Amino acid sequence: MDFVKIKNVHMKPSFLSDLMDKVADGMIPYQWQALNDLVPDAAPSYCMRNLRAAAGEIKAPHGGCVFQDSDLAKWIEAASYTLAWKPDPKLEEEINEAVRLMEKAQLPDGYLNTYYQLTDITKRFTNLRDHHELYCAGHLLEAACAYYEVTGKRRFLDVMERYVDLIDRTFGSEDGKLPGYPGHEEIELALVKLYSITQNEKHLKLAKFFIDQRGQGEGYFNEEAVRRGESTAWDRSVYSGNRYYQAHTPVRQQNKALGHAVRQLYLLCGMADVARETQDEALLKVCREMWKDVTRRQMYITGAVGQSAYGEAFTFDYDLPNDSVYGETCASIALFFFALRMMKAKPLGEYGDICDTLLYNGTISGMNESGDRFFYVNPLECVPERSEKSQPHRHIRPSRQKWFGCACCPPNLARMIANLPACLFLHEGSTAYMNLFSSCEAEIPLEGGCVRLACETKYPWDGKIALRIKESFPGFRLALRLPRWVKTYELTVNGKTPETVMDEGFVYLEGLASGDEIVYDLHMPVQAVSAHPRVTQDAGLIAVRRGPVVYCLEEADNGKNLSALALSRQAEFRCEERMGAVCISAPAKRLSEEGWDEYELYASDRVPVYEDVTARFIPYYLWNNRGEGEMRVWVRALS
Amino acid sequence: MDFVKIKNVHMKPSFLSDLMDKVADGMIPYQWQALNDLVPDAAPSYCMRNLRAAAGEIKAPHGGCVFQDSDLAKWIEAASYTLAWKPDPKLEEEINEAVRLMEKAQLPDGYLNTYYQLTDITKRFTNLRDHHELYCAGHLLEAACAYYEVTGKRRFLDVMERYVDLIDRTFGSEDGKLPGYPGHEEIELALVKLYSITQNEKHLKLAKFFIDQRGQGEGYFNEEAVRRGESTAWDRSVYSGNRYYQAHTPVRQQNKALGHAVRQLYLLCGMADVARETQDEALLKVCREMWKDVTRRQMYITGAVGQSAYGEAFTFDYDLPNDSVYGETCASIALFFFALRMMKAKPLGEYGDICDTLLYNGTISGMNESGDRFFYVNPLECVPERSEKSQPHRHIRPSRQKWFGCACCPPNLARMIANLPACLFLHEGSTAYMNLFSSCEAEIPLEGGCVRLACETKYPWDGKIALRIKESFPGFRLALRLPRWVKTYELTVNGKTPETVMDEGFVYLEGLASGDEIVYDLHMPVQAVSAHPRVTQDAGLIAVRRGPVVYCLEEADNGKNLSALALSRQAEFRCEERMGAVCISAPAKRLSEEGWDEYELYASDRVPVYEDVTARFIPYYLWNNRGEGEMRVWVRALS
Repeated sequence: MDFVKIKNVHMKPSFLSDLMDKVADGMIPYQWQALNDLVPDAAPSYCMRNLRAAAGEIKAPHGGCVFQDSDLAKWIEAASYTLAWKPDPKLEEEINEAVRLMEKAQLPDGYLNTYYQLTDITKRFTNLRDHHELYCAGHLLEAACAYYEVTGKRRFLDVMERYVDLIDRTFGSEDGKLPGYPGHEEIELALVKLYSITQNEKHLKLAKFFIDQRGQGEGYFNEEAVRRGESTAWDRSVYSGNRYYQAHTPVRQQNKALGHAVRQLYLLCGMADVARETQDEALLKVCREMWKDVTRRQMYITGAVGQSAYGEAFTFDYDLPNDSVYGETCASIALFFFALRMMKAKPLGEYGDICDTLLYNGTISGMNESGDRFFYVNPLECVPERSEKSQPHRHIRPSRQKWFGCACCPPNLARMIANLPACLFLHEGSTAYMNLFSSCEAEIPLEGGCVRLACETKYPWDGKIALRIKESFPGFRLALRLPRWVKTYELTVNGKTPETVMDEGFVYLEGLASGDEIVYDLHMPVQAVSAHPRVTQDAGLIAVRRGPVVYCLEEADNGKNLSALALSRQAEFRCEERMGAVCISAPAKRLSEEGWDEYELYASDRVPVYEDVTARFIPYYLWNNRGEGEMRVWVRALS
Repeated sequence: MDFVKIKNVHMKPSFLSDLMDKVADGMIPYQWQALNDLVPDAAPSYCMRNLRAAAGEIKAPHGGCVFQDSDLAKWIEAASYTLAWKPDPKLEEEINEAVRLMEKAQLPDGYLNTYYQLTDITKRFTNLRDHHELYCAGHLLEAACAYYEVTGKRRFLDVMERYVDLIDRTFGSEDGKLPGYPGHEEIELALVKLYSITQNEKHLKLAKFFIDQRGQGEGYFNEEAVRRGESTAWDRSVYSGNRYYQAHTPVRQQNKALGHAVRQLYLLCGMADVARETQDEALLKVCREMWKDVTRRQMYITGAVGQSAYGEAFTFDYDLPNDSVYGETCASIALFFFALRMMKAKPLGEYGDICDTLLYNGTISGMNESGDRFFYVNPLECVPERSEKSQPHRHIRPSRQKWFGCACCPPNLARMIANLPACLFLHEGSTAYMNLFSSCEAEIPLEGGCVRLACETKYPWDGKIALRIKESFPGFRLALRLPRWVKTYELTVNGKTPETVMDEGFVYLEGLASGDEIVYDLHMPVQAVSAHPRVTQDAGLIAVRRGPVVYCLEEADNGKNLSALALSRQAEFRCEERMGAVCISAPAKRLSEEGWDEYELYASDRVPVYEDVTARFIPYYLWNNRGEGEMRVWVRALS
């Protein structure tokens, strides 16, 4: 079971193709400027400068974070995907220039990391805990795989295979090798990508080694710290020590998502990949438990994860503060990647549901409408004055930024979106699974033949999905995801209700022939959503959702003090087109300040006085496109 | 206008006398043990060890914080007050021992601070910003004044007058003096106390200098930092720099409470004292504006202040997070002191109302029932798991502690409570004002004669206050505070309704003669209190209050997940005696988990299912006397 490749899915005008165009036309060129330090008034990236210096073409000290190389890597990965659906010789030339520099910068033994090459190369591989070497290697490897898959050109892949050979000679359980593992997981999943190209068992074995070595014994990060002459006290102080790195216990004994959210989720991606490639049912079971822990006990309604700014970390079950959440864009993206991998392991509708949740909410909230301003943190409630004056809320920026000193999120978003065509369909045996809904044409290779189909939909604004089978073969089976938010739907084939089988979130259709017209109509009323009663922060509150899209109130539409608004669960919601989206309004009540003055803070004789108002909701991902102001997702329920 | 002195008010068995007994019999001896590092498993104090070392009687390095001397000072102040109403030769001997050591430790020029004397004396007065020298001097001075006022013995006062002389020679606007002011305000108010004893104008002038010099020009803390060879960058980074110290602008131009809450409030105490002593109406106006800002826009319903753990600081208007509040016990105490001073400047009922709020809620919540465990932070919501696992909540300790490395709060509470007799009555002209209600006998010197009266009440559990005039004089006027929470009351003199005048929170009674029996019956129903609609954190919530006492829900009575409980504003509240207090219960609803399972975090088809339960409330100050568990003050309102 695997996803249908990017080249086999041709996107047609749709919500997703608009996102992709934004990436190709806006974010990719903008980020190339950023990587070359050419964006005025933005934090410099130093990425290309570092690479040129490492290649000996200029003299410059290393700039930026220790993991700066990964920003370039993610950009190359994103740019490579766009080449699959929007060829662009100039862009390919830019990638080639970066690859040329990497080839030149690479040391004879294969090493490639601008931080150590421009500081003290003798210290390489001495601080896996903090210095992101293997993380950067992983991202470069993902980029090389993407570029190879799209262009068929091996140059970058050759560079990275040489680097991986060095890493393989350096790390492992054999005598003379270091029994280490990355401080920031990423290379595990990248090695499985490499393995899927090379089919070289040593690549898979190295990924499995990094996963199973993690958290063994007293912990490699402590050994390393002692070798550096440092104490092991960090393990009891910094972000809860090894737990921050998911290295407190072997991964097969882990059952709670904890520590740094992106680290945790990239690890889970690697685990799911290795489990699938090695048919390791026990490891997959751990992934399933962790999936449940993340998505059913520690995930916001927008898909955001990582409740705490301290350590950008998970906290505990049902702890979902809306106004102090971290919810890093990268963490949402990482959860999207994890969902895709879980889907590849077993097609359950819920994995696709979470893809939808992330795709239409917690990931793309990370960028503005024009794709040149970015959020690192994605709160569900923002009061700008609080961000300014209350320390625990200072990480909640009330406006998207041009770039960041640590700019992991923007290129991550670009690579996720640029690769969306490869997230729509899966194939297994003679069955094609439709995971995401978008207008497109797809060619799906299956056992027994190839299927070609066309899809038309205005999803997520409309639940109607029209599919036309352009080519089929006997025995072909089509599985359409039935999202969990759907309460009623209609399905017809050539206008008639077909026989279907429902199983774990998919509707299975058989006997489809060329020319068949399928209409899959997911009824999409506005819904008032409650959180589990154990989520103390959402007690008495509702969120407004329509289809997969979560909505929010903004000051621009509703004035200041959004906490004063209250809504009936049974309110008559109205939809309207606004801001290029379906927006929602509903009759609501606003707690009046009548009878209160500034000389009174508490009163016992106040029966709340409400004014009738219209609450106006916009899709959450669109917030902060009209200046700074309050925003909130969870609204007080009147009933 | 001033308060009737401690020796003139004899407490009778009452809520307040119980507190005082707890201080005299429990806290004072316990804290003496703590100051002598004799409490097992508690953070050491080092106070007496530092003093012995400074006196040359032992060899030991300085231990504890730079402001450690102040803990001893506050303890002496507390112990001195208790001597006024509970003579105890052994206790006086302990005080004398400390005073003897101070006298011996004092340098020939008057300097007295164990930190600098045991580290590097050449550095004294070089870091007013951080090193609390003037703060410690202020507390020692308050202690010396208290000890002198109660015992009439000058030895300690003499020591402190010598130290004040040195400070006066060191600081001031004259040539050759340092134009500095304390990093932690306190000495200003202490100097006015000294002035009230000495009537030496230079003491008042020095207090006024420290107040008016504050925030002038580029700021003394910057000058000082430059002299120490440090940068002035701190002013843009640490806790918002000079704002943390209320030194960002001259105090007469300040109109918002900001920065460190205890600093801000001690400054305001000093300002109110100086304004009153110098008839400085402009300065008093600033105090009034600040009073409003604190109590009407930044104060919790318990009286707690300082919303942010970062900088233990004020934040902004109507920002009152219940679960991440700092609400330091010392800040509540400081606000109590500020209220007393405002009352002395002008008798408004609201000052006494806030005294009540603090006295029955946000101050005494800082100690347990037996007076040997203390809270530094006083949250209005506590979820122990959150305190453990969520960094922004780690300062919210779910249990009171034996002692603290920074132990400012326990002795502060002791000195506040031990001095309560001096907070009951004020005298002005021929009028006696009753500020606090407690069983007592009082002898009140007034223009025109002396009044003696006896009071009996079960306040705060019962609103009935019975007063008997034992001695009076023609023209005597009695002003009884009418708390703002009172909606109805009855007042009789000898069984008949007298003529009264109501003015700004006081009921004025004239023509009282010896033998008159006054019954002042404040009706005390349970009240459902709302916060101002701009307090986003309390939107849709109510707090339960009866008289001045604020109530809370505890897990011990109501199970886990208190956020699931909801209550009608019109609920039928029942009172019951429990835990030595009036507790409250009410029919309530508990959001059921019926229909939810651990596999579901959000759902759109959940009409909330409520179970009928009884919500059981205890007085807020009594929380955490039955082990660790959840607590919350603000409860969801059903109506």
